[in-house]
Amino acid sequence: MRETNRQWRLASYPDGMPVESNWALSEGAIPEPGPGEMLVRAIYLDVAPYMRGRISPQKNYAANVKPGDVMIGGGVGEVVRSKSKDYQPGDVVVTDHSFGWQDYAALRPSSVRRVDPKLAPLPYWLDVLGMNGLTAYFALIDAGSAKPGDTVVVSAAAGSVGQIAGQLARLTGCRAIAITSSAEKLSWCRELGYDEGINYRQERDLAAAVARVCPKGVDVFLDNTGGPMHDAVMQNLATYARIVVIGTVSLAGKLEQPDIGPRFLRQILIARARVQGFLVSDYQNRQDGVRARLADWYRAGKLKSRFDFADGLESAPKAFLRLLTSQNLGKQLVRVSDEKPED
Amino acid sequence: MRETNRQWRLASYPDGMPVESNWALSEGAIPEPGPGEMLVRAIYLDVAPYMRGRISPQKNYAANVKPGDVMIGGGVGEVVRSKSKDYQPGDVVVTDHSFGWQDYAALRPSSVRRVDPKLAPLPYWLDVLGMNGLTAYFALIDAGSAKPGDTVVVSAAAGSVGQIAGQLARLTGCRAIAITSSAEKLSWCRELGYDEGINYRQERDLAAAVARVCPKGVDVFLDNTGGPMHDAVMQNLATYARIVVIGTVSLAGKLEQPDIGPRFLRQILIARARVQGFLVSDYQNRQDGVRARLADWYRAGKLKSRFDFADGLESAPKAFLRLLTSQNLGKQLVRVSDEKPED
Repeated sequence: MRETNRQWRLASYPDGMPVESNWALSEGAIPEPGPGEMLVRAIYLDVAPYMRGRISPQKNYAANVKPGDVMIGGGVGEVVRSKSKDYQPGDVVVTDHSFGWQDYAALRPSSVRRVDPKLAPLPYWLDVLGMNGLTAYFALIDAGSAKPGDTVVVSAAAGSVGQIAGQLARLTGCRAIAITSSAEKLSWCRELGYDEGINYRQERDLAAAVARVCPKGVDVFLDNTGGPMHDAVMQNLATYARIVVIGTVSLAGKLEQPDIGPRFLRQILIARARVQGFLVSDYQNRQDGVRARLADWYRAGKLKSRFDFADGLESAPKAFLRLLTSQNLGKQLVRVSDEKPED
Repeated sequence: MRETNRQWRLASYPDGMPVESNWALSEGAIPEPGPGEMLVRAIYLDVAPYMRGRISPQKNYAANVKPGDVMIGGGVGEVVRSKSKDYQPGDVVVTDHSFGWQDYAALRPSSVRRVDPKLAPLPYWLDVLGMNGLTAYFALIDAGSAKPGDTVVVSAAAGSVGQIAGQLARLTGCRAIAITSSAEKLSWCRELGYDEGINYRQERDLAAAVARVCPKGVDVFLDNTGGPMHDAVMQNLATYARIVVIGTVSLAGKLEQPDIGPRFLRQILIARARVQGFLVSDYQNRQDGVRARLADWYRAGKLKSRFDFADGLESAPKAFLRLLTSQNLGKQLVRVSDEKPED
């Protein structure tokens, strides 16, 4: 076991696209778990686009990280000490947001879920069996009201939510269309079962490209990016289209500025489209049931994921920046320590 | 009875804000009703913001008027000849869209509804008891999911839909906020029961003005205008806000151009807001029931309207332009001929 706890703290709010120096690595004592709490060693830490919104002075849906605070983030880890009756050293747990970018966290049982390593390898608990799977499911099925025969377009289609969403769209009987940023990602999307795809960096007229692959228009749009991908799809809405605003990663470099560009009120009116802002935590009380369903599909080989690992806690900011600049392929995680139990 | 039928035909598509010369008045034979049809004399003709979208080469939700066609529009009129068993000369009928800007129309019974002049004066059949009442109701209650205690903001609040929407919001137990374009309109909105109002032409910072009158944010926004009013409200969304896109009259002068300005995907995401494009014809099979409810409220004195009449068929384009430039106060109609029956 390490003798100290390293922590990535926010050093400053980003000015546009974040840079590594927006965080600073500090080293201190390993935390003491309080009554009922446990000490958990980070194995995999999550980096995800929503974290960009959390390191901004702008209004957000949840309390933001302030300079000096440990950076927010979920993680999978091993219980190394426990003052909870329900968890023993050696147990593996996952938490969606409350690990933080650090080697060790003192966690309450209420903020973790138990991991069953026999059901799925540990990284999947931050992916298909975690927020990404739930987000893809609720965004597609609930907010997006996806129905068999629908044309479903997913932006950031090879990303953490996108790769699951495409497979769920196929499971739902939809035609799934990927928008992504490279030939390699597009090829992975085809392996996942996406029917068609667009590498937006290869298209001069993105709206025309969407029209080409969606000749009947777009019924459901899972919008993980905003930006030019959003604009192109909004010009190709089918009547009664549903647009689910899941994330705005394409705005990562200008989150504190107004986003100026074409607006689509006429398109929304003409299509009688529905644009729905989405947050997975609004589906809290249905998450267990859907997670069980996702686990069934995973076990049956119907949901696969690709991961992109960065090694070592020290790589966390770099891994996050890879994500914001579309350099990752699949779900980006930080591998902090070994999966095998400590002595 | 006139000896000829005058008709306003579209002469050319507008280039920006329409001008009177986009229409031309022609004169011809009074139409002969076909089998089962009736000849109807126009008494009041409707002019409404949706007509701007119909005289554009741009894609729309319905077939557009082409140069040479008679201008589209609803009307109330008297049956003067009938080849239908169901209607007799002297009966009064209303049609939502299919009268056209003309003195006489040959109409099928399926495209009209019977008017009961004892229930309400004729203009109300194009207003509270017509599309405006239905639009206000379905937009507020269905698309907007208005609930008691909600803060409801209505743009173009003294307009045809707005004046009814404000009263319905009060009937629903909501707090109703008017956005309008003059002190006189604001004063009328207060008479209607709106709790608060903003004259947007008097505000330097419209978003701050909305924040001032909606300190807890906006739960429901009935957006009749788009433009700066839309932008101001989108910066003041309450969590789970519903934005109903009913019309875009503020874009009347630039409907054929992209509408460039700030986009609000972050605000939609953070509030988990729902933006819903609205068209009253999507509620076709519930309209009779709601019209009966609106009639009950009208009879009980709970829904009043103000009308702005232009006189004579020749004034139709002028009346329409008044509307597009916010010069009307209340529901704009064209009084084409006398209410009293012809000999």
